[in-house]
Amino acid sequence: MEKNALFKLSYGLYVLGVNDGNKPNGCIINTAVQLTSNPYRIAVTVNKANYTHDVLMKSKNMTLSVLDITCPFDIFKRFGFQSGKEVNKFDGFDMYDLKDSLPYLTQYANAYMKGHVIETLDELTHTMFIVELDDAVILNEHDSMTYDYYFKNVKPKPEKKKKGWVCKICGWVYEGDELPEDLICPICKHPASDFEPL
Amino acid sequence: MEKNALFKLSYGLYVLGVNDGNKPNGCIINTAVQLTSNPYRIAVTVNKANYTHDVLMKSKNMTLSVLDITCPFDIFKRFGFQSGKEVNKFDGFDMYDLKDSLPYLTQYANAYMKGHVIETLDELTHTMFIVELDDAVILNEHDSMTYDYYFKNVKPKPEKKKKGWVCKICGWVYEGDELPEDLICPICKHPASDFEPL
Repeated sequence: MEKNALFKLSYGLYVLGVNDGNKPNGCIINTAVQLTSNPYRIAVTVNKANYTHDVLMKSKNMTLSVLDITCPFDIFKRFGFQSGKEVNKFDGFDMYDLKDSLPYLTQYANAYMKGHVIETLDELTHTMFIVELDDAVILNEHDSMTYDYYFKNVKPKPEKKKKGWVCKICGWVYEGDELPEDLICPICKHPASDFEPL
Repeated sequence: MEKNALFKLSYGLYVLGVNDGNKPNGCIINTAVQLTSNPYRIAVTVNKANYTHDVLMKSKNMTLSVLDITCPFDIFKRFGFQSGKEVNKFDGFDMYDLKDSLPYLTQYANAYMKGHVIETLDELTHTMFIVELDDAVILNEHDSMTYDYYFKNVKPKPEKKKKGWVCKICGWVYEGDELPEDLICPICKHPASDFEPL
């Protein structure tokens, strides 16, 4: 089993919006699929460790904001890297609106849907919610953000530290694991002894 | 309800492979999502009108070939525009192999998975199959084909018929809804009376 083969499946990225009765909440999910067209039903799958999961289990009402390719990393940090158990993720955030007390993004999302859970399917670490849609609205015409696009263009890459030596005299950089003993700086012509590691 | 909002959901494209005991068969699907990692479970949703649906209901075993961006329109025609009830879709096709008698694509797919159905969920026009994976293999490093990519780059666009008049003498084309009476062909200098509609 090559588990990386699973990464070849394509996904969009979404903010799943709920309300626990005291405050709006939302989390990032990637698994949302349409099931039927008459009536309009979708399935969303949520990790049981998410507060949004527990709220949706009880409240049964949700929105799905479809993130578009203009969505910056900050949105993923806000909705994906902290828990609604501890913070109000919508505090200090004004790019959202409420539909029947359920939050949806008015920016960085090209559409949102609102629906109610009609069935749940226990999948060990996750629950799949079967949702019948009450409403669906197009917000803009940007392309949808995919998981692939997120990894290639949005998620910050770890900075690669270059290995090499810098000439203390002129700043020219020799890239490599080892400094040749007979190196002469091509710019200022100083010898290897005037270089120090980056 | 703006039903086009549903088109904002992102999907990959896949060939779902089965075997009815007499021959391999497969159909194009777009809804495949990973559910859990331990064990590896995915969900695939299939229209009940598909022969592959009926075979999978009985045989419970399937492959999923993840189509990549090199996949040409012919593959979509072969697996999506004809029925396994009437033809053997793999006849005259050599870009596949069998895994335990189940077909998977060896070209135009960047990975394939093999699994068995552990649960089904009736969704009116569709059935969702919950599948536990027995194997997953990476085949190449091309990007996965998305539904969006398919529509923009693979599906042939209807040809726009140009409106205009052609000079019968030299073939020069005047584009427009109406031919000006005083038109002189800029190439051969013949008058409007020597033009005919495209």
